Amino acid sequence: MSETILEKTEGRVSYHDSVEEMLIKIRKDGMSNVFDRWASQEKIRCKFCLEGLSCQLCSQGPCRINLKGEQEKGVCGISPDAMAMRNMLLKNVMGAGTYSHHAYEAFRTLRATGEGKTPFTIKDANKLKWMCEKVGINTNQDINKMAIDLANFLESEMGKDVEEPSVMVDVFAPRKRKQVWKDLGIYPSGVVHEEQNAVASCLTNVDGDYVSLAKKALSLGLATIYTAQIGLEMTQDILFGTPTPHEVNVDLGIMDPEYVNIVFNGHQPWAGAATIKKANLKEIQDKAKAVGAKGLRIVGSIETGQELLQRFEVNDVFVGLMGNWLSIEPLLATGTVDVFAMEENCSPPAIDHYAEKYQITLVGVSTIIGIPGLNHMIEYNPAKVDEMADKLIDLALENFKKRKNKITSQVPKITQKAIAGFSTEAVLNALGNKLDPLVDVIKAGKIKGIVALANCSTLRNGPQDWNSVNLVKQLIKKDILVVAGGCGNHALEVAGLCNLDALNITGEGLKEVCSMLKIPPVLSFGTCTDTGRISMLVTELANFLDVDIPDLPIAVTAPEWMEQKATIDGVFAVAYGAYTHLSPTPFLTGAKQLVKLLTEDVENLTGGKIALGDNPVEVANNIEAHIINKRRGLGLS
Amino acid sequence: MSETILEKTEGRVSYHDSVEEMLIKIRKDGMSNVFDRWASQEKIRCKFCLEGLSCQLCSQGPCRINLKGEQEKGVCGISPDAMAMRNMLLKNVMGAGTYSHHAYEAFRTLRATGEGKTPFTIKDANKLKWMCEKVGINTNQDINKMAIDLANFLESEMGKDVEEPSVMVDVFAPRKRKQVWKDLGIYPSGVVHEEQNAVASCLTNVDGDYVSLAKKALSLGLATIYTAQIGLEMTQDILFGTPTPHEVNVDLGIMDPEYVNIVFNGHQPWAGAATIKKANLKEIQDKAKAVGAKGLRIVGSIETGQELLQRFEVNDVFVGLMGNWLSIEPLLATGTVDVFAMEENCSPPAIDHYAEKYQITLVGVSTIIGIPGLNHMIEYNPAKVDEMADKLIDLALENFKKRKNKITSQVPKITQKAIAGFSTEAVLNALGNKLDPLVDVIKAGKIKGIVALANCSTLRNGPQDWNSVNLVKQLIKKDILVVAGGCGNHALEVAGLCNLDALNITGEGLKEVCSMLKIPPVLSFGTCTDTGRISMLVTELANFLDVDIPDLPIAVTAPEWMEQKATIDGVFAVAYGAYTHLSPTPFLTGAKQLVKLLTEDVENLTGGKIALGDNPVEVANNIEAHIINKRRGLGLS
Repeated sequence: MSETILEKTEGRVSYHDSVEEMLIKIRKDGMSNVFDRWASQEKIRCKFCLEGLSCQLCSQGPCRINLKGEQEKGVCGISPDAMAMRNMLLKNVMGAGTYSHHAYEAFRTLRATGEGKTPFTIKDANKLKWMCEKVGINTNQDINKMAIDLANFLESEMGKDVEEPSVMVDVFAPRKRKQVWKDLGIYPSGVVHEEQNAVASCLTNVDGDYVSLAKKALSLGLATIYTAQIGLEMTQDILFGTPTPHEVNVDLGIMDPEYVNIVFNGHQPWAGAATIKKANLKEIQDKAKAVGAKGLRIVGSIETGQELLQRFEVNDVFVGLMGNWLSIEPLLATGTVDVFAMEENCSPPAIDHYAEKYQITLVGVSTIIGIPGLNHMIEYNPAKVDEMADKLIDLALENFKKRKNKITSQVPKITQKAIAGFSTEAVLNALGNKLDPLVDVIKAGKIKGIVALANCSTLRNGPQDWNSVNLVKQLIKKDILVVAGGCGNHALEVAGLCNLDALNITGEGLKEVCSMLKIPPVLSFGTCTDTGRISMLVTELANFLDVDIPDLPIAVTAPEWMEQKATIDGVFAVAYGAYTHLSPTPFLTGAKQLVKLLTEDVENLTGGKIALGDNPVEVANNIEAHIINKRRGLGLS
Repeated sequence: MSETILEKTEGRVSYHDSVEEMLIKIRKDGMSNVFDRWASQEKIRCKFCLEGLSCQLCSQGPCRINLKGEQEKGVCGISPDAMAMRNMLLKNVMGAGTYSHHAYEAFRTLRATGEGKTPFTIKDANKLKWMCEKVGINTNQDINKMAIDLANFLESEMGKDVEEPSVMVDVFAPRKRKQVWKDLGIYPSGVVHEEQNAVASCLTNVDGDYVSLAKKALSLGLATIYTAQIGLEMTQDILFGTPTPHEVNVDLGIMDPEYVNIVFNGHQPWAGAATIKKANLKEIQDKAKAVGAKGLRIVGSIETGQELLQRFEVNDVFVGLMGNWLSIEPLLATGTVDVFAMEENCSPPAIDHYAEKYQITLVGVSTIIGIPGLNHMIEYNPAKVDEMADKLIDLALENFKKRKNKITSQVPKITQKAIAGFSTEAVLNALGNKLDPLVDVIKAGKIKGIVALANCSTLRNGPQDWNSVNLVKQLIKKDILVVAGGCGNHALEVAGLCNLDALNITGEGLKEVCSMLKIPPVLSFGTCTDTGRISMLVTELANFLDVDIPDLPIAVTAPEWMEQKATIDGVFAVAYGAYTHLSPTPFLTGAKQLVKLLTEDVENLTGGKIALGDNPVEVANNIEAHIINKRRGLGLS
């Protein structure tokens, strides 16, 4: 790994050499691809859209607001600030809605498992008991009955309204935050209720006040984390085990064309977990050998891959994580994939051409998925996930028979090591089950502060992962510990920042602590869905020190946010009280009052705020300045 | 009323003279207004947005698709068809979400009423029993307990998923439709579940297939009608009485500056119903007189006004309906409004300037409302609606004191009569509680067919209400009975088409039937929320004749749809199996395959389809041709 911070970007589309190599092949094969489509779209961008001053919601539109001209408002009378914030809230609703969908699938899987209808079991009974105790469910009962009770409880929490406040928020919110949220009128109900309220507010001629809309976003952000994310991640821990750190393999080099390869892509681990279980059976491996393969393998793609990576050992059956979403087309072009199974974002819509060209069977394993030319749709049903795994294996075997003689594969010879599987429990475990050692090294300045990175990967602010990787290099050099989730986490894993070699480019203080604990300077905490999990660690710290979140020497960064789930995570962070860096700049720069609210005034309200900036060096300096300021507030040097 | 069908539109902004008169004052007063903002925006429309080929969802956008150039797909790879359909589905979700919000408020109001916590009572016990019998709730119990059971049942129906199918759909869907929906894979679950599924599908890189997205819209449309709308309208009947036809006053002439005037605007009747009750008390009228007014009056505005109109007698306290949403700024400019209370759309965002100029107190009476400069926010809570009414009256009295000396009022001297309050029950009652007489006159050709009109009012296809009114004039002339809901219904009421005078411009056959029954040729069935109610009548007819919906000589028209609720009503109509005319043309003309699907191919699937066209004469001819075709199918001449 290079110690040089800002590598030259000329001519590159990605930080990763594996992607660069595959793009040469993709172009040679004449395939449309996300990198070239980006370049093409750059020619016809709309500046109104970029500034958030375009609205297509009603038949009296489309409207544009021209601050210099006569169009100061939309036809309905909406202001630039409300137009931009409403556009943003609508995206927040999409993000919250998708997390809620994931939570819905998690809770019904837990219930079905308690009822003995799935191939899964209660793998982490301690966590189940811990959750039940936390929320007031009787733990003096059969473990499966307890699971059913918890599933029903978590499901009902999502629908909670003001008449019946959420228990999850009360139990998991930082002690000192709750009154702040009540005073601001953003104390959340259940996420499904907040979504309903927010989406109805976005209707034409309902909420045209940018402040009111912004408050709804903050409330929705809190509801998403406390009543969807945390419950669903704990549920996945209960079903598949709480993550513990272990070494894994990442990048495109994990692919081997000689095997039947089933790739799981998206965010939800159900189909992947069931198929890994099957794939470990000798009879399945024998079937693969019978069609001329060396065996059958499971490959993790983006967040589904990460969810599996956190909890399953990487071995000759489950071989690791290929990378993040911008690596999907490059992965497919390797000519090694037999089944590409998808259940959530990112499942890009134009991969049907890749499926045809490189002989891949595309399978949707959730109702929400839709790809033109999708070969098979198997709707997820917890009680039928075993059959789903059988079907996926059969499809992969069939595909391999066609692929082996037809497709010339090309796999970049690049595999990276990463330590994945951090969690609050794992961190506490490394610290001897108490927070004092962490507090001590922070007080001593060895760890200056902690930055949570949670986001995607985008081309808007440079090549794939360029901004994420370079920012993190800057941060760890400054003795700032990074806790990462999301496609941005895969960026860091693939770039080699999640293994012990990264200590070579880490500041002395942080390096000393990490070396002692044998952990990398970047802790891979999972997916974007683990934003809630990351917040649990920070909440523990704040409660332990008896301070509020804005008092801590911490920050949040999303240096390459791309989709709508990232926007709701960002909004949560602001409500949570965190300095929240976002790059690229969201589409709201034309809304001057709104920008001032989100980047300045909100700090006096929640203690958090949005910080912008696309230059990793400057952003790292600003984050460091913020952290030093907060250290001073706590009386630390 | 003029018999001339296509009045000249030069220089006009509205079909209604009252609005034209007020606009002169508005312009003289230098006020920004929707009509002039429309003209201004006309100068900077984006053609990509108009065609549905613009996307701002993710940070790799904004993208535009240029069918003639090199930008054939978005950066992610989405096609023009999927981009346009996803934009549309997102609007559908907003509409469904808003109806669900209304339903949520209705169901908790019913529950609170059963618990004795509201000033409301079970006004229509027969309807409560009928609903309970329909859905399998024990009717052999206390009426209030029954109400609570029904409220809980209806609330849970909204969350139903595939594991536990909806009872409401099973009970209220047309007998012959259910298998069609199952075969197409669009048989709906509860609306909240469908919203979740749809909104997660709209996320970047989740559903990029226009056919899949369109199916989700159809399913969502069905879910909206069967698990939100029908339940909420039946609930409102139970609480406030099933509508029965009676004469009411409409148009701006109902305003009198000498009274304290409280206007209820939006869609939900809670605050208005509670305040009407209070306003009938002598002590309240005395309070009004004590501040120098002749008394205190309640005024209905747009759909809230219509909901009240359907069920409350118009008298000297509740004076009628002012008109539809484009009449709001004109209403406010009359200088007669003391409190403008809002709970849903349309509550346009720029009316704060009107409030300041004409001394009006703006009050939000729902969490979803947000207006810059809103004077008061009283969040709706069924158990506190009595206090809300008190507060609104106090605010109005205070406002009147300021208004009476400060503001010179101007009220157009135009009041129209309308017969409002039709419902399936009222129609059956008029027919002697059997459908045979209706069937007989249809068979005889006296009534050629029935058209359901449900929509808004927009400036896109001409002056306010110009298209709605002219189309309906054409239809009734052709002996086609019109059943109307929504802001489009107010258009017809204010234009004088919902009273017996309209029989003068009605075709001979329809005129004969209407004269006999003493009903107008346009039956005012309520609001856009009554789309479900209207469908109940059509379903009765289909079940009675033992035919499917597409076999009937009926059609649906939305000749001036404006917002997102209208889009989900339209999508429902297509899934329901109806010929569905939409004007203006939705933003999807750039998506050629999608247009073909929605206007042609879908007819082979659901039996319904979208028909376009902005010319009332041509549209009426097309509808007539469709109806004649369906008559032939049934063996009628």
